[in-house]
Amino acid sequence: MNEIAARIDALRAKKINLHGKDFLLTWEKSAEELEATFQVAEILRGMRENRISPRLWDSGIAVSIFKDNSTRTRFSYASACNLLGLTVQDFEEKKSQAAHGETVRETAAMISFLTEAIGIRDDIFLGEGDRFQREVAQALDDAVAAGVLPGRPVVVNLQSDVDHPTQAMADALHLVNRFGGADRLKGKKIAMTWAHSPSYGKPLSVPQGIIGLMTRFGMEVALAYPPGYTLIPETVEIARKNAAASGGSLTIVSSMEEAFEGADVVYPKSWAPYAVMQERTALLTKGDEAALKELERSCLANNASYRSWECTEKMMSLTRDALYMHCLPADISGVSCAQGEVAESVFDRFRAATYREAGYKPYIIAAMILLARLRRPVEALEALLKAKAPRFVEE
Amino acid sequence: MNEIAARIDALRAKKINLHGKDFLLTWEKSAEELEATFQVAEILRGMRENRISPRLWDSGIAVSIFKDNSTRTRFSYASACNLLGLTVQDFEEKKSQAAHGETVRETAAMISFLTEAIGIRDDIFLGEGDRFQREVAQALDDAVAAGVLPGRPVVVNLQSDVDHPTQAMADALHLVNRFGGADRLKGKKIAMTWAHSPSYGKPLSVPQGIIGLMTRFGMEVALAYPPGYTLIPETVEIARKNAAASGGSLTIVSSMEEAFEGADVVYPKSWAPYAVMQERTALLTKGDEAALKELERSCLANNASYRSWECTEKMMSLTRDALYMHCLPADISGVSCAQGEVAESVFDRFRAATYREAGYKPYIIAAMILLARLRRPVEALEALLKAKAPRFVEE
Amino acid sequence: MNEIAARIDALRAKKINLHGKDFLLTWEKSAEELEATFQVAEILRGMRENRISPRLWDSGIAVSIFKDNSTRTRFSYASACNLLGLTVQDFEEKKSQAAHGETVRETAAMISFLTEAIGIRDDIFLGEGDRFQREVAQALDDAVAAGVLPGRPVVVNLQSDVDHPTQAMADALHLVNRFGGADRLKGKKIAMTWAHSPSYGKPLSVPQGIIGLMTRFGMEVALAYPPGYTLIPETVEIARKNAAASGGSLTIVSSMEEAFEGADVVYPKSWAPYAVMQERTALLTKGDEAALKELERSCLANNASYRSWECTEKMMSLTRDALYMHCLPADISGVSCAQGEVAESVFDRFRAATYREAGYKPYIIAAMILLARLRRPVEALEALLKAKAPRFVEE
Repeated sequence: MNEIAARIDALRAKKINLHGKDFLLTWEKSAEELEATFQVAEILRGMRENRISPRLWDSGIAVSIFKDNSTRTRFSYASACNLLGLTVQDFEEKKSQAAHGETVRETAAMISFLTEAIGIRDDIFLGEGDRFQREVAQALDDAVAAGVLPGRPVVVNLQSDVDHPTQAMADALHLVNRFGGADRLKGKKIAMTWAHSPSYGKPLSVPQGIIGLMTRFGMEVALAYPPGYTLIPETVEIARKNAAASGGSLTIVSSMEEAFEGADVVYPKSWAPYAVMQERTALLTKGDEAALKELERSCLANNASYRSWECTEKMMSLTRDALYMHCLPADISGVSCAQGEVAESVFDRFRAATYREAGYKPYIIAAMILLARLRRPVEALEALLKAKAPRFVEE
Repeated sequence: MNEIAARIDALRAKKINLHGKDFLLTWEKSAEELEATFQVAEILRGMRENRISPRLWDSGIAVSIFKDNSTRTRFSYASACNLLGLTVQDFEEKKSQAAHGETVRETAAMISFLTEAIGIRDDIFLGEGDRFQREVAQALDDAVAAGVLPGRPVVVNLQSDVDHPTQAMADALHLVNRFGGADRLKGKKIAMTWAHSPSYGKPLSVPQGIIGLMTRFGMEVALAYPPGYTLIPETVEIARKNAAASGGSLTIVSSMEEAFEGADVVYPKSWAPYAVMQERTALLTKGDEAALKELERSCLANNASYRSWECTEKMMSLTRDALYMHCLPADISGVSCAQGEVAESVFDRFRAATYREAGYKPYIIAAMILLARLRRPVEALEALLKAKAPRFVEE
Repeated sequence: MNEIAARIDALRAKKINLHGKDFLLTWEKSAEELEATFQVAEILRGMRENRISPRLWDSGIAVSIFKDNSTRTRFSYASACNLLGLTVQDFEEKKSQAAHGETVRETAAMISFLTEAIGIRDDIFLGEGDRFQREVAQALDDAVAAGVLPGRPVVVNLQSDVDHPTQAMADALHLVNRFGGADRLKGKKIAMTWAHSPSYGKPLSVPQGIIGLMTRFGMEVALAYPPGYTLIPETVEIARKNAAASGGSLTIVSSMEEAFEGADVVYPKSWAPYAVMQERTALLTKGDEAALKELERSCLANNASYRSWECTEKMMSLTRDALYMHCLPADISGVSCAQGEVAESVFDRFRAATYREAGYKPYIIAAMILLARLRRPVEALEALLKAKAPRFVEE
């Protein structure tokens, strides 16, 4: 309890401007705002684990829009909303390129009359996901301005083509707790590296989200990938600027070994080359199935040239007793595929750690919603702590 | 707050017999009962906008049965139920002609053991939707009589082949607020007109619901459609009798211009001819895909003869500065189709108004459920207002 | 109220060890534990019917995993969870043979961070359903041991290849109330008999569950089926041992007539032969569509040889004014099929009784969850009864 109270005090000291703001990209938030989000996530987790109900709403709808399959983010969002007292209502659309214009404008209003939050996953088409989320946000602003909606739901990015902030923030909170504070991340080396996978078309949002966020805390970020496996150039540029501003660094290297050398944290994960994602988006838009097949074939063939990009025990031995991270599910060699991102023994050692990493996501999402919707979050959290209403009759 | 209290007082004066009754067709309810429904909808809206929780249930299931796709009615129902404290559980069935007899009887009981409301959308087959809803209602009555169910869930028509009462009632409440009271609707002219659309098979329930309801308030209702685009004859007959009883009128005219002339309200919307819907129902029942294709082709060709039935600025200039209404989504010329129901500039001017119109639906549905389930709605609403329990910790 | 209080007192006297335990098979529970489950189900039903809220949770997720279609069990689970204050989140998977190993281990943790209960239906593949449920349970134990989960959700078997405990327990509670107490079941004869159906591949879990459970109460259980229509041998062995221990009996006979002779209860229901289910599982695993078709054809032809296995009035006249039971939906001759499990007049007479039988299921499921999650169920139920918080503002 004292820890929860201390965190609420720490939150009081933060200068934040999150009320009424969507959470789309971590680099649109200040460092203090990110830290406030960590604090609220930990306060909510602390309350739940101490049997205190953090329910802020008596009723209210939280919409989910998943344009791509999802299990863990879907459950994280559902859990976060439930914890706050909101009921999830799925908006289901065909898995198609985002609707635009009139349809988005109208739909955004129609699903929001009694809605508090809208979580959106739209990560398939390059250039679409972030744009769609902003279009929804704009439509909501317009509807509020026109007196159509009694309140403005917050839009939470549950993964776009550009960023995956609920993942990256959960990952960062895992590091904060591992190293004993956000201020202890400064100078720590993290290797965000490509890793081999026998699959294709994995989004860029995780590596982009990781380099975009970890450079905020003064970390030494080493990004490594084989020839051609670049990310969206603008996101790399943002990470570079973040590093300069925080006193950290962003280094791009061309081997997993170099990235792992002396690392405190490693995040080996497959993704598709930016150029392939661009071509794929164009072909998906055209609906050219034959060319898509051929693209997949050539991309997989290319992947196969880089089978050595695997997080083995030997690779791990290059690090400074590094923490292994993954957004899950990982391609584990000899388990989920013949040869993949990580050796079985490495994954086994860190399995529980990766699960705990994932376990922060519901609280991160709840914190994003809470801070966006509450004018006086400190006072509200204090009231919850004082009330000590039990979440469960007995635990 | 004073306005909410005043509305509760107004409700007290109404003679209503809604407890334990389903809401299937507006013309099965008295004028006072319709006005009571408006009052409760506005009371609930007022409470929510004043941060007062109108939650009546601590737990409880609300079943939804959607035999046709739906976004806005689905969200309206989900929002209404959530506001009252009920959790929606979808009953999913193949999109098929309604099951009958044993299956309906059994299913109705099986989904209702702890259920408070059942919302049903069944509008595809002519002669089926209303019949199915009544079959469910009868099965529930039987189950209660047999001691199988501890309570009788209310059945709410979320659109049938005959009426769309949640839409028409939301539309009417929009007019009540526009003109300053239900008593102010008397003598106002509303044009319910067919409009051109490049699509086919749109249900008749909206125009039928509108003429069936607006004739209750003494309005001058002009119904207009091209040759052959008739509605179910019985519903027109009901509207005619309603008009006679309320001191209004129902006039059927053969051009949009005539209907719009001097109108205070216009509702231009496409629908399929009654005869086509009959044939379509027969073909769907037989599963005759080829004949359905041909019916669609000939119907679209016929539609194309009436492209001039478009709500343009010129048409609007015939009216008495009329309010444009639509149940959404509208076919907007040059936006959602080449040439449709309404010109872009007209729709743009009324976009926010149509969104507000749609925004009444959750409260109308909640009012229908509340009045059907509560023996003493006035006392319950007074208690809610007195308790002033916050819906949200802070807004 | 006095009855509820008396049942709470009766519960106090029971020696039970249900806290933290999954509910997978009835024969893994002691007789006192089964009776405690009946008591809690009746206490919850009594509270709800007396307008007392049995809501124990302020928030919390209940996961449902349905690998087979379901209406009544889905609604029963949803209703049970809702009654206790939990929100159901479906985990959807392709209808495929259960995933194993890494995937199950990871998924079980990922869906459980804020989860209180996991209900699983997995009854299609012989040898899979029960195994899958135990794999999930083991994964949850591991996750709790590794500090990944803050609490251990209870796993509830919503039907496996081996048992259907929520059905069998609801059936048994129906009998307890019919005969005036669990102790009154001793010596009563129940006929669990195969019955003809023009369908194929019906699971064995209901007859196995019935003989496995009813033998616990000293009942005389007559199991009857045509040549070859055997059950999983181990489950018959368990029933035999149960009968020996409880002072009842299990007799296998070869005609419906013999089983019905002097019966107090009859449960005529179709199932597929064990050998067919084994072959079907092998073919489904191989994906051999042609052989599956052929198996279905031969199995249906075999079924047709036993059309006389129908619960007719003549069959009923052999009994001691027996209660007819069925898990629903029944194949009713001349109604849902040409010739099926039961004659129309018999079913008509017992329709309401079978609906009431089904109506116990939500309360049985809620009781299973409550007893597995609460350390001090008696104290919690007493507190609920004392608080008398209304579930509904007015009823």
